[in-house]
Amino acid sequence: MSNVVVQNIERADQAIIDGLAECGVATVHESQGRKGLLADYMRPIYSGARVGASAVTISAAPCDNWMVHVAIEQLQPGDILVLAPTSPSNAGYFGDLLATSAQARGCKGLIIDAGVRDIRDLTEMNFPVWSKAIFAQGTIKETLGSVNVPIVCAGELINPGDIIVADDDGVCVVRREEAAEVLEKSQKRVALEEEKRQRLAAGELGLDIYNMRDRLKEKGLKYV
Amino acid sequence: MSNVVVQNIERADQAIIDGLAECGVATVHESQGRKGLLADYMRPIYSGARVGASAVTISAAPCDNWMVHVAIEQLQPGDILVLAPTSPSNAGYFGDLLATSAQARGCKGLIIDAGVRDIRDLTEMNFPVWSKAIFAQGTIKETLGSVNVPIVCAGELINPGDIIVADDDGVCVVRREEAAEVLEKSQKRVALEEEKRQRLAAGELGLDIYNMRDRLKEKGLKYV
Amino acid sequence: MSNVVVQNIERADQAIIDGLAECGVATVHESQGRKGLLADYMRPIYSGARVGASAVTISAAPCDNWMVHVAIEQLQPGDILVLAPTSPSNAGYFGDLLATSAQARGCKGLIIDAGVRDIRDLTEMNFPVWSKAIFAQGTIKETLGSVNVPIVCAGELINPGDIIVADDDGVCVVRREEAAEVLEKSQKRVALEEEKRQRLAAGELGLDIYNMRDRLKEKGLKYV
Amino acid sequence: MSNVVVQNIERADQAIIDGLAECGVATVHESQGRKGLLADYMRPIYSGARVGASAVTISAAPCDNWMVHVAIEQLQPGDILVLAPTSPSNAGYFGDLLATSAQARGCKGLIIDAGVRDIRDLTEMNFPVWSKAIFAQGTIKETLGSVNVPIVCAGELINPGDIIVADDDGVCVVRREEAAEVLEKSQKRVALEEEKRQRLAAGELGLDIYNMRDRLKEKGLKYV
Amino acid sequence: MSNVVVQNIERADQAIIDGLAECGVATVHESQGRKGLLADYMRPIYSGARVGASAVTISAAPCDNWMVHVAIEQLQPGDILVLAPTSPSNAGYFGDLLATSAQARGCKGLIIDAGVRDIRDLTEMNFPVWSKAIFAQGTIKETLGSVNVPIVCAGELINPGDIIVADDDGVCVVRREEAAEVLEKSQKRVALEEEKRQRLAAGELGLDIYNMRDRLKEKGLKYV
Amino acid sequence: MSNVVVQNIERADQAIIDGLAECGVATVHESQGRKGLLADYMRPIYSGARVGASAVTISAAPCDNWMVHVAIEQLQPGDILVLAPTSPSNAGYFGDLLATSAQARGCKGLIIDAGVRDIRDLTEMNFPVWSKAIFAQGTIKETLGSVNVPIVCAGELINPGDIIVADDDGVCVVRREEAAEVLEKSQKRVALEEEKRQRLAAGELGLDIYNMRDRLKEKGLKYV
Repeated sequence: MSNVVVQNIERADQAIIDGLAECGVATVHESQGRKGLLADYMRPIYSGARVGASAVTISAAPCDNWMVHVAIEQLQPGDILVLAPTSPSNAGYFGDLLATSAQARGCKGLIIDAGVRDIRDLTEMNFPVWSKAIFAQGTIKETLGSVNVPIVCAGELINPGDIIVADDDGVCVVRREEAAEVLEKSQKRVALEEEKRQRLAAGELGLDIYNMRDRLKEKGLKYV
Repeated sequence: MSNVVVQNIERADQAIIDGLAECGVATVHESQGRKGLLADYMRPIYSGARVGASAVTISAAPCDNWMVHVAIEQLQPGDILVLAPTSPSNAGYFGDLLATSAQARGCKGLIIDAGVRDIRDLTEMNFPVWSKAIFAQGTIKETLGSVNVPIVCAGELINPGDIIVADDDGVCVVRREEAAEVLEKSQKRVALEEEKRQRLAAGELGLDIYNMRDRLKEKGLKYV
Repeated sequence: MSNVVVQNIERADQAIIDGLAECGVATVHESQGRKGLLADYMRPIYSGARVGASAVTISAAPCDNWMVHVAIEQLQPGDILVLAPTSPSNAGYFGDLLATSAQARGCKGLIIDAGVRDIRDLTEMNFPVWSKAIFAQGTIKETLGSVNVPIVCAGELINPGDIIVADDDGVCVVRREEAAEVLEKSQKRVALEEEKRQRLAAGELGLDIYNMRDRLKEKGLKYV
Repeated sequence: MSNVVVQNIERADQAIIDGLAECGVATVHESQGRKGLLADYMRPIYSGARVGASAVTISAAPCDNWMVHVAIEQLQPGDILVLAPTSPSNAGYFGDLLATSAQARGCKGLIIDAGVRDIRDLTEMNFPVWSKAIFAQGTIKETLGSVNVPIVCAGELINPGDIIVADDDGVCVVRREEAAEVLEKSQKRVALEEEKRQRLAAGELGLDIYNMRDRLKEKGLKYV
Repeated sequence: MSNVVVQNIERADQAIIDGLAECGVATVHESQGRKGLLADYMRPIYSGARVGASAVTISAAPCDNWMVHVAIEQLQPGDILVLAPTSPSNAGYFGDLLATSAQARGCKGLIIDAGVRDIRDLTEMNFPVWSKAIFAQGTIKETLGSVNVPIVCAGELINPGDIIVADDDGVCVVRREEAAEVLEKSQKRVALEEEKRQRLAAGELGLDIYNMRDRLKEKGLKYV
Repeated sequence: MSNVVVQNIERADQAIIDGLAECGVATVHESQGRKGLLADYMRPIYSGARVGASAVTISAAPCDNWMVHVAIEQLQPGDILVLAPTSPSNAGYFGDLLATSAQARGCKGLIIDAGVRDIRDLTEMNFPVWSKAIFAQGTIKETLGSVNVPIVCAGELINPGDIIVADDDGVCVVRREEAAEVLEKSQKRVALEEEKRQRLAAGELGLDIYNMRDRLKEKGLKYV
């Protein structure tokens, strides 16, 4: 399935996506059983962004950003572009012109297992990007790729329409079909954590809150 | 000495520790004979933090943060947690709940040769962390480790009660027994540097201030 | 040609240099045929700096910053220091005292394929640095090197007097003799991009603006 | 789908698998449209091995090799173990005892996006391994994982029963359903290459064999 | 304690050291409770070497091998040189001349957290080296260091007289005082493993030999 | 100067080149004042090769090996191909067919700051390659580059016709104009080293042969 643009993909309900974003990457990752996290080299170009969006995926040739132009036409408001090159590349596939175009279609950001450039402009535009590299190196437009096919990005499988949650801690993918369930678990976890936060802030110890002392003793921990 | 929690450790005088922090990592490192610097991959999660504190050390299994809970009970105001995994790991051992608990006991931050998460919360809490990675990946609680034993963290030996100085330039360890002497040397160095700064700002050259011209000539430097 | 200080180097016209800086690294790199970009590990110590300057080059021994002192005497207002060690090093060759001295002579910053320290001070001084590492590790003054000879820095050949353009996207070198021509091309590119930005912001697609649809079809892209 | 062992997986015909192995990784990768290649950090522990086999996949916790024991029971002659940790790890999941057990069941090797140990024994046993690391660090047996579920290993999606081809050039995965077609294309390619090899060895130039001269000229290549 | 040469160090009994070497790195590491392993980037320059020896430690300035000459005088038959630079370096501190000199005094090899060169000669001389890098880059002789002081090499603390075990799996340090006990445990482990190897080779499964089935079931592993 | 093939380049005398190869990389690098060494990540695909040859340089687009075909026509017996991509790439630019063609024209090997494949065939053909990566990933033929222009390869400037010396220690470039002088110095060094080797093998210490004791004492080395 190469050199293909899939035009109709299913997306999750935006309210669910927004709920996941509000919970944050660490919580969502825990709530879905510690899966879906992209590699830790995926870093935001500026701090403080928190995004939830539907993945429009791009499989692109190394150092070739032609398919980004193709993908932008497929964007709907609430989507995020997710690009994986077919061979490792740090080239700057994406800059302020592409961001202008994507933003005009309601795109909420970019996840790219390669490089990005014009990051001062992107920051001013409030267009968040999580990338492997920042590099001014340009790309060409010679080789076809695909849009909205399953890709592996930074070590994780991402299907078109999957939910991407990204913040300062990294990037996590949630399967579209599991989104509602993961949101429910995430929100419960947030509530639980809030309660624990207050007890911990008041000076109670995790050792007691989580009843760890007996198990530590049983495993053989010695206090001297 | 494994699976042990050492409960009584000696700490240096807080005034000395604060003095070292004020001098900064680069100066302290120079003043103690260019030793004690942790590897340069240890980076702060936000800019501008400057910390001096007594090390409470943690030796933890890979991807297992159980011992962090144990260590928090051992914290006294003015301490800093220093964690080294027994096998390389980028997992996020530490987040906002643990930081809430540590901060409630007067902990000044975390040095971790592994990953950290919830960094937006940690930044808002003003809880500084120097880490090898930022990664939302969670950890388990299955394997014992030790607290307040000597560890090697990011390439340096750290004893419990040693002084940690950390700022935007990195992290440096000062032996508890040498702290007073290192502070004295550091403060002299700061004074000396201030004088030189003014002369350099006024346009004098280091070549002249440090009398380098003769030695350069003697070594054979040619001006053409 | 070792252990040499070349005292008279030619520099480009400052108006041209400033013009290139205003265009930015990504544009300049594109306009001169996608060449001259330093490796993507060269990162600024703080965001938002944008510099254009004439290179005063330093070839230095590993972990030895003696030649920096020598180079500072050769600085003229509008210059930038560019240092490459003769063996890979992350040591902190440069800190606030050297920056004070360099700034006093009108130096606009530092490009260093090694480490830098005192970055809080450098940031406050508004002295930008692009480096491979941030590391408090000090250096010695034992071995000669050269000033204003051609060097290879982060993978690119840099001649003394070449123009350095650096911003958040990285660092690019422009040959002195080609500067005027590159500026002209860069400014045309900026104008062209501005026009495109407006069309893209209004919702037009790159696919149409750049007439890509026929070529994509011809190459075999399938829409499904 | 976690903590699951899938017991019945489909495998490709062994003759097809052997044919692919004979063609080699580079050829198979080309013949299936340049896809399926694992990351280039996957290196063999000794030179000269060439393997074709059906993947029995393992999703394992970091530094925990419990699931390898479970997977071995699922092995059939002609299979290869393919392990991906759920968090990055260099630990030595696999050594000579496990290899003895696997080999006793007809296993042809191991592909592991983590570490391996006892490599002298493995080499003597003629049990090939392609790994990210060689590391004596041991693992624990505390956390469940899964066997024969789809995994992402070194950047590529691998389904149980997919064909793994591995040699000195790296590791490539072929989808089970596409194996026959890829073999046919690969064998054609091998035949074609043999013919070209003879012409090239006789001194003919690729420029002429592939008719490149006109296209180079048209693109603007200048001979000076 | 800098710029010091400690002349009299204690060494373990050679029979114990030889016994540890015979057990190999993976076994020794396990037997002493999974500690003492140097970082996995420490690789042998040729395959098949297996060494046990007493550490003569060297703390050396970056790119400066002066202290190696000093250390060689301190060597006794059965020793191994262990070098850690005070700042990261890949320079080639050691080549065939130094190896000739060391070998003349009975030295069994080199462990170096930096670079080595002349590896063809070293291989022919049967002088094994485990290093971070292979690099022809030379070093200088300008700065003092120390010999036979505790150092941190590739992430592990090494005291003079500690036992080094090194083979194709990496490098492990055993404390001198613990050597006899570790040997005993290692030899028991070897015997135990031999018995298991035979059962596994005969087709018995680890699942049964180690009684894993109940615990797997209890943890919730599902067979489908 | 892009998209250019320079057809007539000057080469050094083959006797000089062969002499340099015989001296080896470490010696040549020292003899020319410790310059010219390519980065230490450039490793041979098999051990034991030692080559001296004239550089035919290739500047190639990322993941595009078109220019290799062009360069092969420019080869003369005794040449070596030296390729640097214009953007970082690990793709396999070169395999057994290209090697067959190059070898037919007398080419002695390849130096490539990117990937290579078919390494089993290349080893059997006795065609040595020093590369940054081994990777089966293929390349395309879409973008022009240049042949026989100055390039920066693995951190060093290489002019067409410069001498490349490569062995197990790495790769070194010698300027064509300096070759005779460097050979003379190298051969003197080899003779000198042979004499020292015999003294060291007989048990004399470098401390005495090089008269280091006084200088060490003067610098403050303490024996305890």
